[in-house]
Amino acid sequence: MLNKKGRTVFFKKPPVIRSYASVVGKKEANGPLREYFDVISMDAFLGQKSYEKAEAQLQKTAVSRALLKGKIAAEQIDYIMGGDLLNQCISSSYAIREFGIPFIGLYGACSTMSESLALASTLCACGAAEHCAAVSSSHFCSAERQFRFPLNYGGQRTPTAQWTVTGAGSVVVSREGEKSLPRIHAVTFGKIEDLGITDINNMGAAMAPAAASTLAAFLEDSGTCPEDYDLILTGDLGVLGSDLLIRLLMDNGINIRTQHNDCGKIIYDIERQDVHSGGSGCGCCASVFCSKIMQDISAGKLKNVLLMATGALMSTVSVQQGESIPAVSHLVHISCGEV
Amino acid sequence: MLNKKGRTVFFKKPPVIRSYASVVGKKEANGPLREYFDVISMDAFLGQKSYEKAEAQLQKTAVSRALLKGKIAAEQIDYIMGGDLLNQCISSSYAIREFGIPFIGLYGACSTMSESLALASTLCACGAAEHCAAVSSSHFCSAERQFRFPLNYGGQRTPTAQWTVTGAGSVVVSREGEKSLPRIHAVTFGKIEDLGITDINNMGAAMAPAAASTLAAFLEDSGTCPEDYDLILTGDLGVLGSDLLIRLLMDNGINIRTQHNDCGKIIYDIERQDVHSGGSGCGCCASVFCSKIMQDISAGKLKNVLLMATGALMSTVSVQQGESIPAVSHLVHISCGEV
Repeated sequence: MLNKKGRTVFFKKPPVIRSYASVVGKKEANGPLREYFDVISMDAFLGQKSYEKAEAQLQKTAVSRALLKGKIAAEQIDYIMGGDLLNQCISSSYAIREFGIPFIGLYGACSTMSESLALASTLCACGAAEHCAAVSSSHFCSAERQFRFPLNYGGQRTPTAQWTVTGAGSVVVSREGEKSLPRIHAVTFGKIEDLGITDINNMGAAMAPAAASTLAAFLEDSGTCPEDYDLILTGDLGVLGSDLLIRLLMDNGINIRTQHNDCGKIIYDIERQDVHSGGSGCGCCASVFCSKIMQDISAGKLKNVLLMATGALMSTVSVQQGESIPAVSHLVHISCGEV
Repeated sequence: MLNKKGRTVFFKKPPVIRSYASVVGKKEANGPLREYFDVISMDAFLGQKSYEKAEAQLQKTAVSRALLKGKIAAEQIDYIMGGDLLNQCISSSYAIREFGIPFIGLYGACSTMSESLALASTLCACGAAEHCAAVSSSHFCSAERQFRFPLNYGGQRTPTAQWTVTGAGSVVVSREGEKSLPRIHAVTFGKIEDLGITDINNMGAAMAPAAASTLAAFLEDSGTCPEDYDLILTGDLGVLGSDLLIRLLMDNGINIRTQHNDCGKIIYDIERQDVHSGGSGCGCCASVFCSKIMQDISAGKLKNVLLMATGALMSTVSVQQGESIPAVSHLVHISCGEV
C-alpha cells in the first residue's frame, strides 16, 4: 500500500482530498484572495470573549464547513489531526473538543497544515483510516500578544517582519473517492534544519533551509525535477524567505524560480496592505491552500502541486535564552487527473 | 496489514519494541524505581544553562541511549515523534535537532508517550517506516515556572496537586525483530473528553474521563475484559485521578481495580517524598514505562499490558479565561510471548 524510497512515502493507492474549507478575518478578506474563502469574519473576536477563543472558533468553523462540503458526518471521521501556535495548542484542543473525533494532536508550528495533511493521507493510504480531517489556524491578535507585544503597545515592525494571518483551513482526506477528486500521491516528512538564525523578526530566513532540504530530498526520491510541477508552494516564507529558498536550492543546482510561490506572498497585497515581508502563521498556509490553491487544483488549472509548509520551532523562551531557530518542513504531493 | 474495528487499529503483523531508555533527576532517583532507570542526573541543570535546555538534554540523552541499546544508528530511524509540555514544545525541537531524523512533532500534553508510541507503531505496522523512535519529557523546574510560580516563590501546594517528574523516556519501534521482543498489537487514539473540571490543581480528575472513555472503547473493540491483562497502566492520574477512573469505569460495569496502576503513583514514595497526589508530566509515564514496566515486560513478568497516558489540553491562558480542562488518552496494547 506504501512504497518508501529515501525519505519519501509513495502511496500505491493515493487517497483523495474529499473536501476543504477556509475561514479568514477582515484583513485577509481585504486582500487579493477574497473571493476564494468560504467564510469571512469581519469581527476579530468571531463573537467570542477573547482572541484565543476566537482562534478556536476559526478552527471549529473550518472543520464544520469542510465536513459539510464533503457531505460527511463527524462520526464518520476516524481521526482529526491538527495544531496551532498558541501555547499548548489550545485553539485545536478547544475546537476539536466539540466534534467527538479521535484526536492526534500535532505541533509543527507553521508547518502544521502540511504535517497534518501528510499524516492524514498516510493513515488513509495504509488503511488505518477511511476518513481523516486535518486542520490548523492562527490569529493575528492571539499570536501578537503571545509572541511579541500587547496589541495596544503599537510596536514598530522591522522590514523583515511578517504579518500573522487570521485564518484557518481544514481538509477531509478519504481512502477512496471519485476519480475526479484531487489525490495525494506522496509525502516527505522533514528533518529539523538550523543554520543559526536568531532574529525572530526574520522567520523566513530561519525556515528556508528546512524547505530546501525537504524539497531536495523529495525530488531525489521521486526522480523528478521542478519542471514536473505546476506549482511548488511554501507556507509562509514571505518575500525574503522565498528569495533565500530559491538561492539555497540554486546552490544545489535546483531551479524553482518559475514554479515557486509562497502563501505568505499571495494572501495580502504586500505593498498596499503594509505587511512588510508577507503573511505568516499556521493559518497562512491553511487558508490559502484550502481556498484558491485547492480550487485551482479541483478545476484542473493546477495539475501537479507540491505543498510544503515550514515551521519555526522556537519559543519566546528559547529565543530569550539565545538559542537559534530550528525549522522543519513537510511536503505533500497533490495532483488531479492523470499524472 | 491493519484491521480497524471501532476506534481501535489491530496490527496483523505487530511491530516490536526494539529498545527503550529512561533518564530521570534526583527526586525520581530517590524514589522506589531507582534501580530501573538508565541514566540519573543529580544536577537539575544537566550541565546546561537553563532548565529548558536541561529538559532538552533529558530527551537527547533518552533518545541516544535508546538508539545505543537497540544497536541502531540515527540514520536508520525513519521518523521520530515526540513532544513535551513547554510552550511550542521546545524540549523536543532542540533535542531532536541534533539527530537529523525526520521529525513528526506532536502535542498531546502528558499523553505524548502513548500518542507517540501509537503513531510510531502504526507507521511501522503499515510499512511507512522500518524503524521509528518515540520520545517525551518533562522537568519539574521548567514546568513549575511556566505553569505555576517562580521556583523561588515557594508556593504552597494543594492536597490534590501532583509533582512534575523530571525525566524522559524513549522507545525504538521496528517493523520486524526477534521473536522474543515485546510487540505492540493494537492502538486506540482517544477523543477529547471534558467533564467541566476547572481546577488546575486537580489534573487527575480532569484526565480520568479521557482514560475511561478510551479504555471502554478498546475493550469493546477487542472483545476483551480487564482480566485479560496483567496491567492497565495510566500515565499520571495520581492517587485522586486513579480513584476517579476506577469509579467512572465501575459505573459502566468495568472493574479494573485489580489490574490498574498509575505511573504517577509508583514513581515516588508518595508519603515520604511529599508529592501529594503523585507524579505528573509527560516524563512521568515516559520514564516509568521506559524503565520498570518495559523491563518487566521483557523479562516475562508482565505478559499483557495496556498503556494509556492521559493529557490535559489546557494552557495557563485558557484556565485564566475560565475554560474547563479538556483531556485525551491514547492506548497501546503491548505483549511479550504468546498472547
